[in-house]
Amino acid sequence: MAKEARETGTLIGSDKVEGTAVYGRDNEKIGEIERVMIEKTSGRVSYAVLGFGGFLGIGNDHYPLPWNSLKYDTDVGGYRVGVTEEQLNGAPRYASASSWDWTDRGRTKAVDDYYAGLT
Amino acid sequence: MAKEARETGTLIGSDKVEGTAVYGRDNEKIGEIERVMIEKTSGRVSYAVLGFGGFLGIGNDHYPLPWNSLKYDTDVGGYRVGVTEEQLNGAPRYASASSWDWTDRGRTKAVDDYYAGLT
Repeated sequence: MAKEARETGTLIGSDKVEGTAVYGRDNEKIGEIERVMIEKTSGRVSYAVLGFGGFLGIGNDHYPLPWNSLKYDTDVGGYRVGVTEEQLNGAPRYASASSWDWTDRGRTKAVDDYYAGLT
Repeated sequence: MAKEARETGTLIGSDKVEGTAVYGRDNEKIGEIERVMIEKTSGRVSYAVLGFGGFLGIGNDHYPLPWNSLKYDTDVGGYRVGVTEEQLNGAPRYASASSWDWTDRGRTKAVDDYYAGLT
């Protein structure tokens, strides 16, 4: 590993985001970031994929989250999302053995709506 | 690896970008993407780091590139940047044993200016 910073106050490296813990509203760890999805043309990160259960992609469930639903919390060294582990049961997700179609606007809209509707 | 698509026509996963080959103007492979740097607040990818020489971060040089200087080329299955391997000698870079300060606006401006000035 080179000594270059993979994170500053304003920038973070994609390889640093991957594997970072995500904590829910009740301070329980609900999973880890598996990847972020980047819009090729604009270069904007639109979604992060949270892995829950299993071990990083193997046998677990995957939850697409809007990038802006994640807030980094330096106290816990991970991201926070305003959802409880229990509420995650109602969130859009896919199993490792199934597929997720990012081009399906109905699916991504369901993700946007779910996290926008959390109070 | 889950079967979910890590890439669509418009979206690409960060873990798919990492390791992707980069080709220069003369069709020579000039390296691989090591990571992309994400602006935490806006979620915008501002830079990609190209590794050149050595093997993925070990003993090689690292070239920060503006994200928008990279164009994906389906024919070669990698990114293209409008620079020759020879021109890379004049590009901002850092060695693995040294450091790069992303908060130094002079450095990032030098990167922006270098790739904006290529003709």
